[in-house]
Amino acid sequence: MDAETYMKLAIEEAKKGEGFTNPNPMVGAVIVKDGRIISKDYHRKYGGYHAERNAILNCREDMHGAELYVTLEPCCHYGKTPPCTEIIIESGIKKVYIGTMDKNSLVAGKGAAILREHGIEVVEGICEKECQELNKIFFHYIQTKTPYVVMKYAMTADGKIATHTGDSKWITGEMARERVQRSRHKYMGIMAGVNTVLMDDPKLTCRIEGMKSPIRIICDTHLKTPLSAQVVQTASEVPTIIATIIEEEEKKKPYTDLGCQVWTVPADKTHIDLKALMKKAGEAGIDSILLEGGGTLNYSALKSGIVQEVEMYIAPKIFGGELAKTPVEGQGIAKAADAFELKNPKIEQIGEDILITWEVEQCLQES
Amino acid sequence: MDAETYMKLAIEEAKKGEGFTNPNPMVGAVIVKDGRIISKDYHRKYGGYHAERNAILNCREDMHGAELYVTLEPCCHYGKTPPCTEIIIESGIKKVYIGTMDKNSLVAGKGAAILREHGIEVVEGICEKECQELNKIFFHYIQTKTPYVVMKYAMTADGKIATHTGDSKWITGEMARERVQRSRHKYMGIMAGVNTVLMDDPKLTCRIEGMKSPIRIICDTHLKTPLSAQVVQTASEVPTIIATIIEEEEKKKPYTDLGCQVWTVPADKTHIDLKALMKKAGEAGIDSILLEGGGTLNYSALKSGIVQEVEMYIAPKIFGGELAKTPVEGQGIAKAADAFELKNPKIEQIGEDILITWEVEQCLQES
Repeated sequence: MDAETYMKLAIEEAKKGEGFTNPNPMVGAVIVKDGRIISKDYHRKYGGYHAERNAILNCREDMHGAELYVTLEPCCHYGKTPPCTEIIIESGIKKVYIGTMDKNSLVAGKGAAILREHGIEVVEGICEKECQELNKIFFHYIQTKTPYVVMKYAMTADGKIATHTGDSKWITGEMARERVQRSRHKYMGIMAGVNTVLMDDPKLTCRIEGMKSPIRIICDTHLKTPLSAQVVQTASEVPTIIATIIEEEEKKKPYTDLGCQVWTVPADKTHIDLKALMKKAGEAGIDSILLEGGGTLNYSALKSGIVQEVEMYIAPKIFGGELAKTPVEGQGIAKAADAFELKNPKIEQIGEDILITWEVEQCLQES
Repeated sequence: MDAETYMKLAIEEAKKGEGFTNPNPMVGAVIVKDGRIISKDYHRKYGGYHAERNAILNCREDMHGAELYVTLEPCCHYGKTPPCTEIIIESGIKKVYIGTMDKNSLVAGKGAAILREHGIEVVEGICEKECQELNKIFFHYIQTKTPYVVMKYAMTADGKIATHTGDSKWITGEMARERVQRSRHKYMGIMAGVNTVLMDDPKLTCRIEGMKSPIRIICDTHLKTPLSAQVVQTASEVPTIIATIIEEEEKKKPYTDLGCQVWTVPADKTHIDLKALMKKAGEAGIDSILLEGGGTLNYSALKSGIVQEVEMYIAPKIFGGELAKTPVEGQGIAKAADAFELKNPKIEQIGEDILITWEVEQCLQES
């Protein structure tokens, strides 16, 4: 097998940690000696050992002269765990293949340099694109200090997220809804607007056994979330953050008494400033957010420039209706030429539905 | 090469006639002798010779003992041209491979039977699915006597066909717009509502050199199309039909004077009865219609059960806007469970846009 094939196995290992490692990256490692895999492992969860350390510690064979394939540059600093460069040097491994370099300024090429200083041959950039894609959340977060935001919506083939009476059960089929559940595990936070809470009273948790629920963030400018709402009532089990412009402690207290965090953020005209909220979320260690908003919040989010990705499910049905709700509303742009631009679509069929994932073209004139 | 491979070549031949054969089917024929193609041809245009006749007449070699591959069962009746079964029998061809049988009751198995009676071996159903797909328009038309209707719209990823100010130039890119031009050649008719005429004053022609423009049908309940509209002013060059509930001859005369046909059709409550209009279009020999309607006409068309296919272009952009127009409007359905159902999506990337083609699930409770 060639280097690419081993690196792909390392990527598969890495993916096993999805949803558990945030805000750390997903990393996988494979150790090969004489053309035989003698160990493989991954970064299992935030705060735990890194992939290469796990692979080395769990290896039952002599590693002298072996090759290590690791999806991300090994760290060389003391964080929650000791530097991986040390254990690699001690192990006797003679050659290290790296998927992509770490953009974290604490590492950023230093890990590879230390290995080389110790006589280990280092090859960089094996399956680089895939390894970067694997950790697009991590790289975004480490560089911007704000969460990677994925706007998700499910609509009919004529662009409706509900009928004109507000009925939206269901738009997509079971397989697509299960996929959304997995996304709730994958991303660290989930964000919705107070209108969604008032209308649907969702729990916004991940209901798949063994997976984790995201931190819930409710955008609620004027603190109108009912205390009886599920997101408030279950705040002691699953963290809930209510973002508001209200400052008075006595208005916030009923929510904090029930276990919610209430974050006062600056106002952007009449609503909360979403850019400021993302900064605060980043400071709180939230590296990624699944935005399950209605049309109003979705438009504000796009306008604020906080959205990196759009996940759009299209169901094989048509609702019609001049008054039926659509996924992005608000005022909207006036000229077609001023549209928010998307790029690099990835298309999947999920059961009877179609999922298109786009990257959002980031405007340069962001405020 | 095996039978499937030759039949696929015959299908490629058939497609060369696209847009020119309606309301006849597209048919291709390949003649093979001793493992060598000695002739191939297709049905070139409505009223012209059939594919197998062209292939036989143009063959410069002795056909005794040869094999014929033809996408559709050879005809056995005198229509605009003599029966193909006769010339096949005379040619000396000893074996005929048929893609799909002709559902036209004038043929429907009789063509194959006559060949067999004359000692020619007949194999049916080679690439049957592809051959049926090739002539879905023809089969629909021959069985229902009404046109095959394709609802086409171009929308943003958030389901908008214009911004809230009405700007829609452009939603899709050049390649997608070129594809729509080809569809205008492919389908025999094109249908739009009077609102589209009033708003955009489109010409609704095919602007590609060497291709033909469709017959234009304007749904105009109360005859409000301006006499200055392009579809009226150019009616002497490209046929224009205005469908209305108005009966008074003096109101129709200004349009007919300019070369339009004005069809009075029954009213369905406050609008023209689209089912009745489709019946009339079918009687006039129109086998297929590209519906380029706005939201109101599109909803009426779906509700009337006249739509067979939806062609939906999705552009990589988002407009937003609570008041921005969407592809299917009208009142819309009230319960999600009552949605119009689509099936069998075909997905293509066309430049930066995505084209999804769906079949419309036909309701059983049609009136």
